[in-house]
Amino acid sequence: MATETTLYLVRHGLAGEHGSYANDNERPLTEAGQQKTRQVAHRLADLSLKFDLILTSPLVRARQTAEILMDVGLGQQLEEFSPLAPNGRIEDWVGWFSSWKPGKTGCLALVGHEPGLSTWAETLIWGEAKGAIALKKAGVMGLLLPKTGSPVGHSQLFWLTPPRFLLG
Amino acid sequence: MATETTLYLVRHGLAGEHGSYANDNERPLTEAGQQKTRQVAHRLADLSLKFDLILTSPLVRARQTAEILMDVGLGQQLEEFSPLAPNGRIEDWVGWFSSWKPGKTGCLALVGHEPGLSTWAETLIWGEAKGAIALKKAGVMGLLLPKTGSPVGHSQLFWLTPPRFLLG
Repeated sequence: MATETTLYLVRHGLAGEHGSYANDNERPLTEAGQQKTRQVAHRLADLSLKFDLILTSPLVRARQTAEILMDVGLGQQLEEFSPLAPNGRIEDWVGWFSSWKPGKTGCLALVGHEPGLSTWAETLIWGEAKGAIALKKAGVMGLLLPKTGSPVGHSQLFWLTPPRFLLG
Repeated sequence: MATETTLYLVRHGLAGEHGSYANDNERPLTEAGQQKTRQVAHRLADLSLKFDLILTSPLVRARQTAEILMDVGLGQQLEEFSPLAPNGRIEDWVGWFSSWKPGKTGCLALVGHEPGLSTWAETLIWGEAKGAIALKKAGVMGLLLPKTGSPVGHSQLFWLTPPRFLLG
């Protein structure tokens, strides 16, 4: 039976200054970034969110963000997914998604970067991206994907929030 | 000096059943609709939102919603704006907006209906609407409009929330 998937996109939290690490992939969350990301994670748990699977960019700041989501019990499972790294292609994710079997919640989370995540979201919603969505660090987006067929250009946006409006 | 305007779109709260009133324009918020709208309004005030002006659809359920926003001190001023009624044209609002003088906050709120509000939002963001945004009753959207020129196709979406994710 075809089921609807709810897709959550989470941008990594505040990380060290760009250029502060020889390899940008290693740049970790700052202390403040970890703290706010943890607050966001707790808030998502309070809202009863639960993901069958969390896919994360392999970069340290994203990986750490995804681990914080796991720590508070939001995900059943965590996997690295290389197309979530900067400049990753949504086509690779769409291919992966076409054979993904959702679990009990039907909810999938992607942890990554900007402008990648909002570009992917726009592509899912409108079929193309115009840079018209702003996703803050540790911000969250929610999309409802169609039951059948490609989600590209056929998804619906129901949630987009910066941390400050989520945490108050 | 050109200033950025932040535009908030608020959908009216839960109202009586469609068809329960001879004139649909008179259909009021239910008791539960009033209560949830009041909770949303208090939450917006807690988040330090403040509007120079609230424009509302003249229909009773929207007007009541706007009055609740005013009651908790969110707006400096409330005016009815007939293009916010169902099937109103965004062109009429864009014309109005081009000569609007923002006040201290630079924030403007529109209270209206679906699918009108999300159609307007999509038009502001992407230049056209595809029905790809879901705005729940008493839900809120936030858009950043450009400093100069037409906002159509040049605005940015930074917030979209159903009441349940706002209130928790």
